[in-house]
Amino acid sequence: MPGQKPIKVALLGCGTVGTEVVRLLTDQAPDLTARVGAPVELAGIAVRKPNKHRQVPAELLTTDVDALVESDVDVVVEVVGGIEPARTWLLKALRAGKSVVTANKALLADHSGELFEAADASGADLYFEAAVAGAIPLLRPLRESLAGDRITRVTGIVNGTTNFILSGMDSTGASYAETLEEATRLGYAEADPTADVDGFDAASKAAILASLAFHSRVTAAEVHREGIASVSAADIAAAKGLGRVVKLLAICERVDGSESGEPGAGESISVRVHPAMIPRTHPLAGVSGAFNAVFVEADAAGEMMFYGKGAGGAPTASAVLGDLVAVARNRVVSGRGPRESAYAALPVRPMGQAPTRYHISLDVADRPGVLSQVAAVFAEHDVSIAVVRQEGRVDDAGLVIVTHAATDAALRSTVDKIGGLPVVREVVSVMRVEGEE
Amino acid sequence: MPGQKPIKVALLGCGTVGTEVVRLLTDQAPDLTARVGAPVELAGIAVRKPNKHRQVPAELLTTDVDALVESDVDVVVEVVGGIEPARTWLLKALRAGKSVVTANKALLADHSGELFEAADASGADLYFEAAVAGAIPLLRPLRESLAGDRITRVTGIVNGTTNFILSGMDSTGASYAETLEEATRLGYAEADPTADVDGFDAASKAAILASLAFHSRVTAAEVHREGIASVSAADIAAAKGLGRVVKLLAICERVDGSESGEPGAGESISVRVHPAMIPRTHPLAGVSGAFNAVFVEADAAGEMMFYGKGAGGAPTASAVLGDLVAVARNRVVSGRGPRESAYAALPVRPMGQAPTRYHISLDVADRPGVLSQVAAVFAEHDVSIAVVRQEGRVDDAGLVIVTHAATDAALRSTVDKIGGLPVVREVVSVMRVEGEE
Repeated sequence: MPGQKPIKVALLGCGTVGTEVVRLLTDQAPDLTARVGAPVELAGIAVRKPNKHRQVPAELLTTDVDALVESDVDVVVEVVGGIEPARTWLLKALRAGKSVVTANKALLADHSGELFEAADASGADLYFEAAVAGAIPLLRPLRESLAGDRITRVTGIVNGTTNFILSGMDSTGASYAETLEEATRLGYAEADPTADVDGFDAASKAAILASLAFHSRVTAAEVHREGIASVSAADIAAAKGLGRVVKLLAICERVDGSESGEPGAGESISVRVHPAMIPRTHPLAGVSGAFNAVFVEADAAGEMMFYGKGAGGAPTASAVLGDLVAVARNRVVSGRGPRESAYAALPVRPMGQAPTRYHISLDVADRPGVLSQVAAVFAEHDVSIAVVRQEGRVDDAGLVIVTHAATDAALRSTVDKIGGLPVVREVVSVMRVEGEE
Repeated sequence: MPGQKPIKVALLGCGTVGTEVVRLLTDQAPDLTARVGAPVELAGIAVRKPNKHRQVPAELLTTDVDALVESDVDVVVEVVGGIEPARTWLLKALRAGKSVVTANKALLADHSGELFEAADASGADLYFEAAVAGAIPLLRPLRESLAGDRITRVTGIVNGTTNFILSGMDSTGASYAETLEEATRLGYAEADPTADVDGFDAASKAAILASLAFHSRVTAAEVHREGIASVSAADIAAAKGLGRVVKLLAICERVDGSESGEPGAGESISVRVHPAMIPRTHPLAGVSGAFNAVFVEADAAGEMMFYGKGAGGAPTASAVLGDLVAVARNRVVSGRGPRESAYAALPVRPMGQAPTRYHISLDVADRPGVLSQVAAVFAEHDVSIAVVRQEGRVDDAGLVIVTHAATDAALRSTVDKIGGLPVVREVVSVMRVEGEE
C-alpha cells in the first residue's frame, strides 16, 4: 500500500459541507488509506473567493474550476449545489472518465439520466448518497441491498426544516406563521424558506428515491408537490384528536393497474410530497425536530426504517466520504459501482389518479339529516367512508370523516361539493391520511 | 443482454430461507436479469433429502454438495447454517474462485478471517448481509456507506425471540418462565431456546458487527455474553418505575485509552451482549416484538437507526437476493465487492474493564445511616453515584441507585459487597443501564 499511486480528488465548493469534507480527509487520512488501499489525496479545492477560506490549506484553493476538473484528478467531489454550473462541470468530469461524488439533489433529480449516460460511456462512477437524507445510509440500501426484492412503497420525512416546524406546531399548538418565525430565529429555517416549506427540497429527494426504488427515471417536475404553509393549528388539533400527527411526507408508491380500478391498466407509480396525518403508533410519527427518516416497504423484506440526521455539515460530509471511499476503492481494484437502473420505465400517475385517503373535519348545523346529506355526496363520487365521528355542541356540531382509499381527484371533488352544502358551515380541516390500512 | 452468458448459482440448503430464495429467483427472473445485466440461473440445490422438497423443481435437487460446488457455477449461496460442513464447502467454493453469499452468522462470527483470505486469494466475493438482522440493510451501510466516518458505537436489538419475550414481560408483568412458555406456544421461540435466550445468536451477530464497525477481527468467543433467563419481573418493574425498558442488547463500543482511566492505554473495543435498561425515549425502546433494530453512532454522521424484520424466510431471502444481485453484477462487469477490512486490529477489552453503568435496587432496613453505609461502599470502589431514590415504607425501605460509568469489575465488586451489608435485606434488582449520558 505505501507504494500505491494516490487517488487524487478535486473538491468543488467549500461551504459547510466542503469544509467538513476537508477536515475528515485530513483527520482520517491513515484510516482512509487503509480502507481504500491507496492514499486519498486532495489535489485542489475550487471556490469563488479563495481569501474567504482560511480553514483549509491555501495552496489547494483555486478559482479555475475547469482547469481543476481537467487536471489529472481521479475523482471530482461536488458540494456546490444548484443545477448550473454544477451540471456542466460534472458532465465534463464524467466524460473525461473521472468518477463523481455529489451531494446535489436538485441536479440529480433533474439530470440523473444525462449524468449516468456520461458515466457509462467513460466507465466512471456516479455516487450521490449525500443528496437524500444527509448522513442516513439510504441510497446504497435501495440501490444494492434491496436489488433482489420488489419495493412497493417509500415514505420519507426528508426535510428537517418542515419537520422541525410541524413538530413545534404539534407540541405547542402555535400557528404555522409563529412556528416558522421561531424556526428562523433558531437557524432551523433559512431567511427565504421557500425551498423547504413549499416542498421543493422534498420533491427533489422524492424524485431520486422513486427512481432508485422503482428502476425508472423520475424528475422533480413529475412529483406532485404541496408544502406546509397551509397546515393550520386546526389541522394539527384535528390530527391529535384522532391519535395522529401531521408530517410532510415524500411518498413513492407502486400502483398496480388493478388497484387503480382501470381494467387493463399496467403498473405505474405515484410520487408526491404533501402534508399527511399518520398514526402516532407509526414508526415515522416519533421522528421529530430536524431528524429525517425513511420508511421502506418491500414484498419480501417487509417494513424497514432508516433514521438519522438529514442535514448539517458533518453528517452530509460523512455520506460524501463513504461514497469517496467506494469510488476510490473501485479505482484501485479497477471495479465499478452500480450503474443507472431504469429498465422498468414505469409511468408516473397524475396526482388526480393517485390512490389516497382523506380526513375531513366539518362544522355543520346540528340538525337531523346532516350526515345523510354529507354521506350522499361521498356515495355520488364513489368514495367509501371508513370512520365518522359526530360531536354535538350547543347549536352546531362537529363531523369528522375518514375515507377509505379513492383517487385523489374523486376525494377533491367530494370535498368541494361538501363545502358548498348549505348545512356545512365550515370545512375546518382537510388532510390526507397515510400509514394505515 | 439476451446474449449475455447466464450467472449460474448453486444453492446449498432449502429450508425456510432457501425455499424463499428459489421463489424470488423464479418470480423476479426478468427483473433480476435487468438489474444484473445477465440472466441469473439456478443450477442446482443441494439438500439432504430430495423427496422432502416438493415445492422446488425436482431436476435441480441433488445430495452431492461437492459435485455441485465443483461444477461450473459462478456463485454459491449457503443457507444451511452451522459451522461444519458449511465452512468446508464455502472454503472450497471460494478457493475455486466462486463468489459466496451466506446467511450463516455462526460461521462468519468464527471464521470470517479464513473465508476472506480464501476469497482474496482467488478474487471472489464474500457477502453476508442476511447473517445479521435479516432483511435490514445493515452490513452494507457499515461496510460501505460509513467507510469514510469513525463509528464509535453500535447498539442493537438483534434477536427477535428475546425481544418478543422481554416485550411480553414488559406489557404483562409476567415472569420470564411464563413468557417463554407463551413465546414457544406461539412459535416465537424454538423448542430448545438456548441459542436465543442465552445470547449465543446475538453474540455471533455482535462479533460480525464489531468486526465491520471497527475494522478488526472479532470472534464470538471474544464477546461477553449474558442471556435473559435471569431477568425477573422485579427487574422489569424497576425499569418501568424509572421510565426505562429492559432489552437484550448487542453492544460494540470503541473505548479510548483515556476513558479507561489507564494512562498510556491505546484504543480498544468492548463487545458484549447482555440485558440492559434503556430510557423509554431512546429510539430502540419502541422496537418491540420480533422486530430488530440497530442504533449506530459515528463521529461525523451522528446517530442513526436501522429498523426492520430480523428473521423469517422471506425477509432473510430478500437480503440474500440483494447480495446475489451484487456479486452477479460484479461478475458481469469484472468488478469486486469490498474485501475484509481488519487493518485496525483493535484489541477486545475483557468485560471487567468495559465501562458500564449499573442500576441497583435494594430492600434495606428503614433506619438512619443506611444510605451513608451504602454510599461508603461505592466510594471505596471509586464508583460515582448519579441518582439515589429512597422510599420509606412501614418497617423497611427501598433504595434505588443509578451509577455513573465505571469499570464493570468495580461495579460488580460494589454490588457484591453491598449485598453483604447487614442493613441490606435483599438486592432486588441489578442491571446495566445503556443509552443515556
